[in-house]
Amino acid sequence: MPAAASSRAAAAVDRDRLWDLHMEFAALGATPKGGVNRQALSAEDIAARRLMVGWARRRGFTAHTDDFGNLFVRRAGRNGDAAPVVSGSHLDSQPTGGRFDGAYGVLAACEALAALDDAGIVTERPVEAVAWVNEEGSRFSPGMMGSAIHAGLRALSDTVDIRDPDGVRLGDALTEFLAATPGLPHRPFRAPAAAYIEAHIEQGPRLEAARRTIGVVGGIQGMRWFEVTFAGRDAHAGTTPRAARRDAMRAAAEAVAAMAAATDDGEDALRFTVGRFVARPGSPNTVPGRVDFTIDLRHPDDAVLNATTARLREIAASAATARGCAAELREIFTAAPTLFDAKVVDTVRRNASALGLAHMDIFSGAGHDAMWMARLCPTAMIFVPCAGGLSHNEAESATPDDLAAGARVLAACLAELAGPV
Amino acid sequence: MPAAASSRAAAAVDRDRLWDLHMEFAALGATPKGGVNRQALSAEDIAARRLMVGWARRRGFTAHTDDFGNLFVRRAGRNGDAAPVVSGSHLDSQPTGGRFDGAYGVLAACEALAALDDAGIVTERPVEAVAWVNEEGSRFSPGMMGSAIHAGLRALSDTVDIRDPDGVRLGDALTEFLAATPGLPHRPFRAPAAAYIEAHIEQGPRLEAARRTIGVVGGIQGMRWFEVTFAGRDAHAGTTPRAARRDAMRAAAEAVAAMAAATDDGEDALRFTVGRFVARPGSPNTVPGRVDFTIDLRHPDDAVLNATTARLREIAASAATARGCAAELREIFTAAPTLFDAKVVDTVRRNASALGLAHMDIFSGAGHDAMWMARLCPTAMIFVPCAGGLSHNEAESATPDDLAAGARVLAACLAELAGPV
Repeated sequence: MPAAASSRAAAAVDRDRLWDLHMEFAALGATPKGGVNRQALSAEDIAARRLMVGWARRRGFTAHTDDFGNLFVRRAGRNGDAAPVVSGSHLDSQPTGGRFDGAYGVLAACEALAALDDAGIVTERPVEAVAWVNEEGSRFSPGMMGSAIHAGLRALSDTVDIRDPDGVRLGDALTEFLAATPGLPHRPFRAPAAAYIEAHIEQGPRLEAARRTIGVVGGIQGMRWFEVTFAGRDAHAGTTPRAARRDAMRAAAEAVAAMAAATDDGEDALRFTVGRFVARPGSPNTVPGRVDFTIDLRHPDDAVLNATTARLREIAASAATARGCAAELREIFTAAPTLFDAKVVDTVRRNASALGLAHMDIFSGAGHDAMWMARLCPTAMIFVPCAGGLSHNEAESATPDDLAAGARVLAACLAELAGPV
Repeated sequence: MPAAASSRAAAAVDRDRLWDLHMEFAALGATPKGGVNRQALSAEDIAARRLMVGWARRRGFTAHTDDFGNLFVRRAGRNGDAAPVVSGSHLDSQPTGGRFDGAYGVLAACEALAALDDAGIVTERPVEAVAWVNEEGSRFSPGMMGSAIHAGLRALSDTVDIRDPDGVRLGDALTEFLAATPGLPHRPFRAPAAAYIEAHIEQGPRLEAARRTIGVVGGIQGMRWFEVTFAGRDAHAGTTPRAARRDAMRAAAEAVAAMAAATDDGEDALRFTVGRFVARPGSPNTVPGRVDFTIDLRHPDDAVLNATTARLREIAASAATARGCAAELREIFTAAPTLFDAKVVDTVRRNASALGLAHMDIFSGAGHDAMWMARLCPTAMIFVPCAGGLSHNEAESATPDDLAAGARVLAACLAELAGPV
């Protein structure tokens, strides 16, 4: 009776226990403004790792690591050889991060394991909670590193010489990180998994606006990053008539305005952002001869991204020509849209419905470790609301009720996917 | 016979001697790219001052200074009590400056004094060549300082505590500067002057484009500087739909584009420049919550500047509102248009015509020491072409013929204004 096991697992989720666990972890790297500074492989990150290992041992679960420090807490199944159902996220934070980004996914998974235990549910497969190392990438760039290495998409050896802003080598920080929790058995990368579900705060405003508790995440938007350069000619602001100017600032401003207009899609699904914009030489009385800006472009559909990229190139070229400038648009990063596994997504949707929770289908605007795990096994995500959609911010907040609701859906899904006996 | 004296003075201008003097000064602070780095009150500026004092003494002229180091070289007139006719500019340069900006006006005045001498012209009034201190303001900000202090528009005591980027106090640098040429008689600020004419390279492309040798400068454009701030809200580029954004970058780009369009006047007289533009926090995947940019606005007519300022305020407000942002536009500097003395301007025009030189009436887009001297006495300027309108650049260039033509007009004007006997 799978549905019954799911519903018992969900019912055993303890709202206050989950909240208290959040507060316990939030104390590690707590900032005066109520946020968290717990960057990857730092002393605070080590403290969080120790806390999770201690929690596992107190609950009678086993803890494992891989060579990059990704931490797996395992509740045994009846069949010890079966691939586990895995759930988790990350414990590292932005330097001025919040208490829920990442931590929620790890702690919801821990709470789900505890709930399965408390409800006395025996599963066929093991169920595991995982904490991926260095999802944020704010100390050692880029992010989503631990899951990428575990999923075999990046070699550990390619990352050890990355240095943080203080010059610390990642390899050295990792050695210290691993040594802080001695005695953990090591497992290989690409360890088999039957399924992966990641719970996370939405980091956007849509659930809150639609008054839904659960986001059934169908995938992750594709993302492309561009660097754009407009080259004109420096000129004296007072003596150079408009006809003699090659004004890179004017051309670039006109391009950004036109690009923003061209990406105003009706359904508000296309995300166009110019986040960095630098005019040179940057003197008030000199017509800028050069402007560099970045474009972050996201959409769930690669075809839309292709068409939009072509349109942005046209706009850059024509805006430059109109002002006697030259434009160059370079694609510096691309991530294809991730479509999660339809069956796992449906499992999330069905269990949210069965639990009577208001839910909606949603696409993730941000990247998550689930993006890489989706290459390894059937994957989905569960979103819960965060106040005002605010994240990567010390003021990030979520309610105990919403966090518990997400954990209930998660526990129900894990019970179902792990095959209750 | 004034016309005859003017024509003899002009004829006595020695093209090659003037060019050689330019090259002699250009060696002081010469840069590898053929420019000059001779910032105000520096060792190079002291060397230039010494060279000018030595030149004066060799020619039998007297040299005077005021307490800010402005240097006056005087060719006596018949009436030693009459106010002199003064001509000059500055010897300091931008850090990557050219060989002619400023230096030309000083050296053309020196050549004019030499020509009057060589032609044996006796004038009623003394004629003086002046080198103003710190016109550029690149080391000690702001510029046009020496002429402002001499004309009584700024107190010397207000400037001595200004520091250069290395922390050197202007007062200390000035003491050293004055000590390097001991024995110069000091004259008071606001010393009477009968007229002032400043020769300068145009620093713009209009003479070259119109194939004219002489610009008869009617005045200096009014200038206003604004700082503009657009305030929105930082947001995640991936998770924040357009409808939930308060995108300061988009609003500011749309404002700049609209402002540029609104200042596209038919006669190309209005100068609108956004020279500095900073988006914050400046991360590619964060919607900027704040943008700051500068506006440099210039026109010969204050009424046009008033109307345009009002229009820019409207555009900033409506562009901000359209994107859920707030805009603030602060006027941080204003200089009313300067209209030169009609009679002195006509003197320049008549003498250029009499010498058969192609000339045109022109307004200065840049500020010059003549702006402050116009408050003290009847003033005008003479422009000569520079290649491509390029200035404040090591590649700045002008031809020996054009420089000599300007010096001929200047010598003719000085002879006329000083009252040949």
